[in-house]
Amino acid sequence: MEPEVLRRRLAAAGQGHLLRFWAELGGAERRALCEELQSLDCEALGACFRRAMEGADAADRDKVDGRMEALPRAVLGSAIRDADQLPEWEREGLHQISQSKVAVLLLAGGQGTRLGVSYPKGMYDVGLPSHKTLFQIQAERILKLQQLAEKQHGTKCVIPWYIMTSGRTMESTKEFFLKHNYFGLKQKNVIFFQQGMLPAMGFDGKIFLEEKGKVSMAPDGNGGLYRALGAHGIVEDMEQRGIWSIHMYCVDNILVKVADPRFIGFCIQKGAECGAKVVEKTNPMEPVGVVCRVDGMYQVVEYSEISLATAQKRSSDGRLLFNAGNIANHYLSVPFLRDVINIYEPQLKHHVAQKKIPYMDITSGQLVKPDKPNGIKMEKFVFDIFQFAKQFVVYEVLREDEFSPLKNADSQNGKDNPTTARHALMSLHHCWVLNAGGHFVDENGTRIPAIPRFTSGKPDAITADVNCNLKDANDLPIQCEISPLISYGGEGLEKYVENKEFHAPLIIDENGIYERVKNSV
Amino acid sequence: MEPEVLRRRLAAAGQGHLLRFWAELGGAERRALCEELQSLDCEALGACFRRAMEGADAADRDKVDGRMEALPRAVLGSAIRDADQLPEWEREGLHQISQSKVAVLLLAGGQGTRLGVSYPKGMYDVGLPSHKTLFQIQAERILKLQQLAEKQHGTKCVIPWYIMTSGRTMESTKEFFLKHNYFGLKQKNVIFFQQGMLPAMGFDGKIFLEEKGKVSMAPDGNGGLYRALGAHGIVEDMEQRGIWSIHMYCVDNILVKVADPRFIGFCIQKGAECGAKVVEKTNPMEPVGVVCRVDGMYQVVEYSEISLATAQKRSSDGRLLFNAGNIANHYLSVPFLRDVINIYEPQLKHHVAQKKIPYMDITSGQLVKPDKPNGIKMEKFVFDIFQFAKQFVVYEVLREDEFSPLKNADSQNGKDNPTTARHALMSLHHCWVLNAGGHFVDENGTRIPAIPRFTSGKPDAITADVNCNLKDANDLPIQCEISPLISYGGEGLEKYVENKEFHAPLIIDENGIYERVKNSV
Repeated sequence: MEPEVLRRRLAAAGQGHLLRFWAELGGAERRALCEELQSLDCEALGACFRRAMEGADAADRDKVDGRMEALPRAVLGSAIRDADQLPEWEREGLHQISQSKVAVLLLAGGQGTRLGVSYPKGMYDVGLPSHKTLFQIQAERILKLQQLAEKQHGTKCVIPWYIMTSGRTMESTKEFFLKHNYFGLKQKNVIFFQQGMLPAMGFDGKIFLEEKGKVSMAPDGNGGLYRALGAHGIVEDMEQRGIWSIHMYCVDNILVKVADPRFIGFCIQKGAECGAKVVEKTNPMEPVGVVCRVDGMYQVVEYSEISLATAQKRSSDGRLLFNAGNIANHYLSVPFLRDVINIYEPQLKHHVAQKKIPYMDITSGQLVKPDKPNGIKMEKFVFDIFQFAKQFVVYEVLREDEFSPLKNADSQNGKDNPTTARHALMSLHHCWVLNAGGHFVDENGTRIPAIPRFTSGKPDAITADVNCNLKDANDLPIQCEISPLISYGGEGLEKYVENKEFHAPLIIDENGIYERVKNSV
Repeated sequence: MEPEVLRRRLAAAGQGHLLRFWAELGGAERRALCEELQSLDCEALGACFRRAMEGADAADRDKVDGRMEALPRAVLGSAIRDADQLPEWEREGLHQISQSKVAVLLLAGGQGTRLGVSYPKGMYDVGLPSHKTLFQIQAERILKLQQLAEKQHGTKCVIPWYIMTSGRTMESTKEFFLKHNYFGLKQKNVIFFQQGMLPAMGFDGKIFLEEKGKVSMAPDGNGGLYRALGAHGIVEDMEQRGIWSIHMYCVDNILVKVADPRFIGFCIQKGAECGAKVVEKTNPMEPVGVVCRVDGMYQVVEYSEISLATAQKRSSDGRLLFNAGNIANHYLSVPFLRDVINIYEPQLKHHVAQKKIPYMDITSGQLVKPDKPNGIKMEKFVFDIFQFAKQFVVYEVLREDEFSPLKNADSQNGKDNPTTARHALMSLHHCWVLNAGGHFVDENGTRIPAIPRFTSGKPDAITADVNCNLKDANDLPIQCEISPLISYGGEGLEKYVENKEFHAPLIIDENGIYERVKNSV
């Protein structure tokens, strides 16, 4: 396209300023900028912007807070309260898996910015004894599930793994999987695709430049998933493979039960098009979105949208009224996903997030780093499409079994960091060993209580601490790691541990059992 | 007593070795040792030791684990589930207080060893904007309650404060209170007394020396409280003052509702002799003792005594079956306490805690620091006497409202440390302000959501984080501190904050309201 044509088109869309520095650009920069600008549909963007802003105003006018309703018991399944039904749900799920009807969809676009690393979060090693990365742990869970399903039904099966990356993470992610031979999975069953980007705009709808020759682009939120799925023909691939059920999740949860057969089986038996796995929110101030109904439609309400009074509401049983904490573990049927992509998602308004967006000042030609929000980021959320499901269900699980996200670098009193993730996994595996009849003993050969005491480094001096039976909560979990290739959810460990005594750290993997040799430290 | 007499007496009790180094001691050391040894009733100690060891064996033979029963609903009151009854309980409690029938009993023998300080925990400043110590916060809550009760009933009243210290903390505690004029309380209404000590013994019942001329003594556990109360005539003092209800608690809980009128009122209306305030234990692995019944008798079972299977048991509502987490907040009636001291406590066996006890080796004369347990510490626990109450009740409260213990120094991923204590108090006070109709605004004058977003230091750059609605849990509470002299439990704040907007940090105390001047930082 001729620069002149482009200039006219941009001017017509009120984005003429994007070429403000054209004269200062070299040939390569000009070509790059042209390419970038030509790929933008400025008219469509303008429309999105106007609708998004209307939406935002509407939201301000009409707080969601007052319109929230709790979940009806009918749509709820609980791994805690419906324990008697778990075997049946698991059987159903494994059956679906054995028929190769289940796929896994991973949102892995995130960089470890807050973690303090520049590579994709999935490549992070939280410091387990095995030093496995999040990607490897998840891959091995998929492998193990395939084996379990095959063993139970005597049929070969595949759980394809669809991985959405962002522009920034695609190459490194692919290389990482290649380098590790896809962790034992077949390359053709691991499908990468890339989420889209949107330009950042000011409150006036004008697109920002981040350099004189470069538009300020940002990933279009996890809701961009649906557009990306459409753009890359993922649903067609799923249909060709005969997939019916999709488990969608986020890369940063070290405990994630990838393709959880119980969750899948529950959704199948409920005839659900869409479902959300949740953990109980127990503290009103906990910053987690909750699944609920608003004007009769299912959605996730962000913690920042609700008043304290609403967050503190309780039902007669004493639980928080809005306690279905969203952990970004969703179920989608393929037919529903197709309709979402073709019909529903395009109807969704973007959410508007006010942001501090560094930008190239058009008059001064200087890069400005604003100290208050100066523009918006438009995004849609994965869960915006819950409302369109004819049959929507919610499945409650225990936090300590299934949810420990990795968000931050280790820091004093930090949460959701490598240490908490590592401890959560080892504590769970410690429980698996005990429940399978194993025991841990200390350096004196005495059995360690199931709930371990605080382990201070220094010898246990007699202190004057009138400790009032309030035990220290700093307890370190017993170092224990069980490879997903040995057990997916704690099953089948008896033959390794029953009536045996171990010295931590204990590692059980496909090569055998390792424990600390007594008194070796 | 003649050394010879003493020598014969010790020898007869099998403790002759305590004089092993007599010849090496100087005059002063000899006098000190004699005094120490003469104060020991070796026969009684021997008897205690034998009964304690039998008890320990019995415990081993017959695990408590299998004999635990959940609490019957009849004895349960809940600040969460019985919200409708709170006003009545509070009215009753304030009435009792207004009649000067309520006293507070503080267990403050603990040194801040794990906190990394050598002075009493109560003197610790967790770094609140006001820099008040735990002692001051608790004193001001007592003052405020007296005012509330007087205001409501038009009668002057007193809540006497009984403070048990250990030998190590008595002097510094007294000095601290004197230096601060008892924080506005009357000196005659703050009564200090000292808990007892017991010698440490080997597994053979032989008493350890910690120096050639010094017996190894240790405080006799918080259960020593009852013997100390008897020894110092505390109950007589209570009776002379006309006290009926006692609230007993531990110094290290920054949120403690000293003499909580609701708790007192609930116990009074239930006709209870004894009661325990608890918080819900939600994670089976949480290291907290639980209040339950064993063989039909109420007691606290320590987390280290139960198996994982028992800790994981759940009732049909999904809650843990044993979820009444002990937070060392107890109610006692004075008549019951008198019987405890005179009749019940002496019947109690000591618990035996195996310890690594540094000791003076009798043959070599060298101090030995053992690397495995070499002896026992005998102790009784405050809650051992629950079983003797004719009417025992349990009162459940919200952890975030009432329980945040100070145990450890700040450390990476630490729990129960100065930072968590400070945050717990400021988060609660933040809620008080919101519920009283106040608002917080950021530097741009925009209202901050009730549940504040993660506040990263750096400007909010647009990242590729597909964050899946899993919000960062690192959220810092809004800096907000309200003096106990202004509000005991969140009441009466409307006149200060309703429909007002504040910049944090916000401090409200008897001198007025302080907030950060806009853009001052």
